[in-house]
Amino acid sequence: MKTHTDKSTLVEELLADIENFKIAHNCDRLVMVWWGSTEIYHEAQEVHSSLAKFEEGLRTNDPDIAPSMMYAYAALKSGVPFAMGAPNLCLDIPALEELALLTNTPIAGKDFKTGQTLMKTIVAPGLRARALGVRGWFSINILGNRDGLVLDVPENFKTKEVSKGNVLDGILNGEQNPELWGDIHHKVRIEYYPPLGDNKEGWDNIDIFGWMGYQMQIKINFLCRDSILAAPIVLDLALFLDLAKRAELAGIQEWLSFYWKAPQTLPELEPIHDLFKQLEKLENTLRYLMGEELITNLGMDYYQNVEEDASY
Amino acid sequence: MKTHTDKSTLVEELLADIENFKIAHNCDRLVMVWWGSTEIYHEAQEVHSSLAKFEEGLRTNDPDIAPSMMYAYAALKSGVPFAMGAPNLCLDIPALEELALLTNTPIAGKDFKTGQTLMKTIVAPGLRARALGVRGWFSINILGNRDGLVLDVPENFKTKEVSKGNVLDGILNGEQNPELWGDIHHKVRIEYYPPLGDNKEGWDNIDIFGWMGYQMQIKINFLCRDSILAAPIVLDLALFLDLAKRAELAGIQEWLSFYWKAPQTLPELEPIHDLFKQLEKLENTLRYLMGEELITNLGMDYYQNVEEDASY
Amino acid sequence: MKTHTDKSTLVEELLADIENFKIAHNCDRLVMVWWGSTEIYHEAQEVHSSLAKFEEGLRTNDPDIAPSMMYAYAALKSGVPFAMGAPNLCLDIPALEELALLTNTPIAGKDFKTGQTLMKTIVAPGLRARALGVRGWFSINILGNRDGLVLDVPENFKTKEVSKGNVLDGILNGEQNPELWGDIHHKVRIEYYPPLGDNKEGWDNIDIFGWMGYQMQIKINFLCRDSILAAPIVLDLALFLDLAKRAELAGIQEWLSFYWKAPQTLPELEPIHDLFKQLEKLENTLRYLMGEELITNLGMDYYQNVEEDASY
Amino acid sequence: MKTHTDKSTLVEELLADIENFKIAHNCDRLVMVWWGSTEIYHEAQEVHSSLAKFEEGLRTNDPDIAPSMMYAYAALKSGVPFAMGAPNLCLDIPALEELALLTNTPIAGKDFKTGQTLMKTIVAPGLRARALGVRGWFSINILGNRDGLVLDVPENFKTKEVSKGNVLDGILNGEQNPELWGDIHHKVRIEYYPPLGDNKEGWDNIDIFGWMGYQMQIKINFLCRDSILAAPIVLDLALFLDLAKRAELAGIQEWLSFYWKAPQTLPELEPIHDLFKQLEKLENTLRYLMGEELITNLGMDYYQNVEEDASY
Repeated sequence: MKTHTDKSTLVEELLADIENFKIAHNCDRLVMVWWGSTEIYHEAQEVHSSLAKFEEGLRTNDPDIAPSMMYAYAALKSGVPFAMGAPNLCLDIPALEELALLTNTPIAGKDFKTGQTLMKTIVAPGLRARALGVRGWFSINILGNRDGLVLDVPENFKTKEVSKGNVLDGILNGEQNPELWGDIHHKVRIEYYPPLGDNKEGWDNIDIFGWMGYQMQIKINFLCRDSILAAPIVLDLALFLDLAKRAELAGIQEWLSFYWKAPQTLPELEPIHDLFKQLEKLENTLRYLMGEELITNLGMDYYQNVEEDASY
Repeated sequence: MKTHTDKSTLVEELLADIENFKIAHNCDRLVMVWWGSTEIYHEAQEVHSSLAKFEEGLRTNDPDIAPSMMYAYAALKSGVPFAMGAPNLCLDIPALEELALLTNTPIAGKDFKTGQTLMKTIVAPGLRARALGVRGWFSINILGNRDGLVLDVPENFKTKEVSKGNVLDGILNGEQNPELWGDIHHKVRIEYYPPLGDNKEGWDNIDIFGWMGYQMQIKINFLCRDSILAAPIVLDLALFLDLAKRAELAGIQEWLSFYWKAPQTLPELEPIHDLFKQLEKLENTLRYLMGEELITNLGMDYYQNVEEDASY
Repeated sequence: MKTHTDKSTLVEELLADIENFKIAHNCDRLVMVWWGSTEIYHEAQEVHSSLAKFEEGLRTNDPDIAPSMMYAYAALKSGVPFAMGAPNLCLDIPALEELALLTNTPIAGKDFKTGQTLMKTIVAPGLRARALGVRGWFSINILGNRDGLVLDVPENFKTKEVSKGNVLDGILNGEQNPELWGDIHHKVRIEYYPPLGDNKEGWDNIDIFGWMGYQMQIKINFLCRDSILAAPIVLDLALFLDLAKRAELAGIQEWLSFYWKAPQTLPELEPIHDLFKQLEKLENTLRYLMGEELITNLGMDYYQNVEEDASY
Repeated sequence: MKTHTDKSTLVEELLADIENFKIAHNCDRLVMVWWGSTEIYHEAQEVHSSLAKFEEGLRTNDPDIAPSMMYAYAALKSGVPFAMGAPNLCLDIPALEELALLTNTPIAGKDFKTGQTLMKTIVAPGLRARALGVRGWFSINILGNRDGLVLDVPENFKTKEVSKGNVLDGILNGEQNPELWGDIHHKVRIEYYPPLGDNKEGWDNIDIFGWMGYQMQIKINFLCRDSILAAPIVLDLALFLDLAKRAELAGIQEWLSFYWKAPQTLPELEPIHDLFKQLEKLENTLRYLMGEELITNLGMDYYQNVEEDASY
């Protein structure tokens, strides 16, 4: 815990911590993953718009520089890949994107995709695949630990709500298919409910419609535990960000979208939220890096076999 | 409704029906889709093992030739593509596969993937993607119409049970990952429950485990209607089987696996059950037929853009 | 709709409306049931503390006199029994209780018990009967019509929350049984969700514990419609309040607790929330009024039969 | 475990066991509660119709005398109160009822009311109270231990099904209210599902209708554990059967109906299944035995208070 309030000094200390950790543990390479609580909601400001302005802000103690941004800054400055597991505005500001490219450091975020949003990006692609219309999607999460307590504060929940809210629109494209997905009432609620302790439950009510507008419903109750679903993500990210660093992939690691509620992309691109497209992106990128053939699931070799195999 | 009991005569009548329908409605091309009830359980016999033996069986009124096989025979003989929407043993016998190739006719089956199995092939790939172990999957379906009544007869349910049972094994490969999926208790029940009328409900209880073996559960209640979920499948299949015929793709249309609970494949191949792989297979095959580039979701162009775009 | 803003004048008009309605429809007796939306939250003030102060408040246009109070005042002044179907502070103020006794008029309230609270007062007595402990009860209601819209306004929801909140404490007495019910986390949420239209859904998650503290859960999804559950309550109340008037039962009709989320009682008494005690109260009061023997469900006549019947 | 196959000898051994247990543990009084697995289905036969025929059957090794009947016989012969926790045909045969009266011994059964049936006798009285019609009630239980394995055998399930089936008819009287409850499709299923281990889950889908026939649904998922819900029942029964013995209440203890899925009654009487009537029966019987006033929940003292208390 840092007790100084001068942001430049704090960043200096973090840089020293990183260096000392590397020496103390005799590490060749490091990766840093933020797995802390959700910070209060910030919107991007002038101070975030370039590296120069950000560094000026550190010197002037700008209140819009959040703690997580200082950690990310220190990591990137040290050439250490950084991943943002919370929904904080952090890596997704021009200042830090600029720094990542400058130091050839991979970055990835944000907000680990576990629990209810994970389920949402599994089920929504299925509805899209079968062209089932969606009238509404009501999601409630009850959780009992400090995470729930933090999110019971409206300023913090706002950060989370924005991060969770875009998932459906990204998968069920209302502009392309206004009849099916142009008017989805998507509502997400998180409630602090101590009896669950470290467990968490999601209840989703999905109002869909099929052929001739016939209304149907899907209800999903997911009894899970955040830490259990998040732990392997942290491990994967540590390995893959290190791989990215060695493969000289600098900046935004969009091929790691698989792990995020709000995958970071270039400003002009839309994030991919469909878990299965994300998985294919991950797997085919790994195949590419290994020099292997990409999987397309094309079925035509089937008929070539048939033709070649006269004995069939 | 045919009243003769002599199978050769019945097939002759079906052939005439097809021809007369084509003339009466002034059709250039036809497609036939079986959307009838589930027949009693048949296992493949000698009579199904070749076209010659099958035609001999028609002449000798072999009891192992089911009504649906006669419809399929008549269609294929007439060069009309045929799809099997029920879980009946029908197209998936060597005799009819042989006839399909002989008359250059596409075939596709079997058992429309709607309701609970559709949901299963949406959710299971998500569990596989995240390497979540599965201890058990209990599925119950309650339905109120004639379909439920027919499936309340054990001989008919057996046909359905076999068709539905392999879906999970195909997605969660226990041989490759025995620790995660080597011991899944998968149980499927269908119950006739008249109050639902033409509606249907599935309730799934899925017992999963994550990091450190921690146990979690997913419960899904799907309030749906079979006919609504099946109708667009029939339409798609009519269009795609006609396309296959014109594209000279004869025999098993494995690229249409997307629509089936038990996709028909060559005997030496495993069917693909993952809805998203099936969808990609469908879409990339269509792209291939149109001469378009296949989608791989590879993310590497991302970094090439970054390098090219110096102003970033 | 009354357009005057002078409360004395408004009440005069309501008194005239009641009189004119009675003449126009040739009625001997009337009953008035309030079935409007929830008003904003009011707490009892000086103006509500006696009939004299309330009438003074009408003359001075006191802002703490809500519209529903004026309707109730006019009804009671006319000797017309009045029931309050919304959670508004209205009949449950000393001023109107005083007026009811003065004019020998029955009153009953408040907040029709339908949907989730109905289910709660069915299930909680079952848990109490079997001495099952309760760690938490999380209730969420989603509804799509104007009722949901009104309750999305925090000032209105506050009125409802207070009305709904005491139900559990009344049934699961934490003071008598602190080990079982002394620390219940009871949380109630109502969310406006337009896709449901006039329908409503409740989802309850109940965390219970049994022998040796073993934790178990009950989850209830109630797909219902408020108007359908409320309509017969209105009819019953019209009949029973008229009966009460004829039986000369003036003031609070506590024997009609069966119909209310927050049954009105004398200030020194606790309301009964257990649906089955409420039902017995209703039925035994009717038996009493008819001069019939009360039902006690005592089982001792069983053994007297046994003794008398020597041939057994 | 007894290894003899001669039923007279087995009973002699049981009588000796009881006597020896009493001496060894220095007990004044004993109670015996059967908490074993479900036996195969038996229907009442000639051998069960009187004590004389039953004792003749013991001598001739009649196959219709089940093991549990021999335990009950030995207990009653010894004057030890006996409770039947399984759904076995046992105490509810004239032979043992006769023996109970002969030795002034209380008996009570059968089939501990836990889990899904407990929930059913909580919820159904609520539907009856509010005159909500019921079109269907579908109940499925999944359980993973030996109890589930035993009930997977159709002959054993039959015993259970009969015991569970009458609960609804007893509460929702279709003869009195054919419009509301004259045509209920009640279906109960139990499935062996090992992943749950000693836990159990019930899923109920209840199709109800209200005002104007409007259809609604209630879905209940109960995650519980049989042993936890049954253990306190065993303890209560031991205490109350001993009390009954001391209070000289011989034969069927109908006032203990509260604990049973299929409460034993005199042949000419209908069992009470409503949990709340059962509870009142239990509590008022205890009050009667203690010489206290019975509770009727009558509300009339309310108005007498009002009249007497002029200062109100």
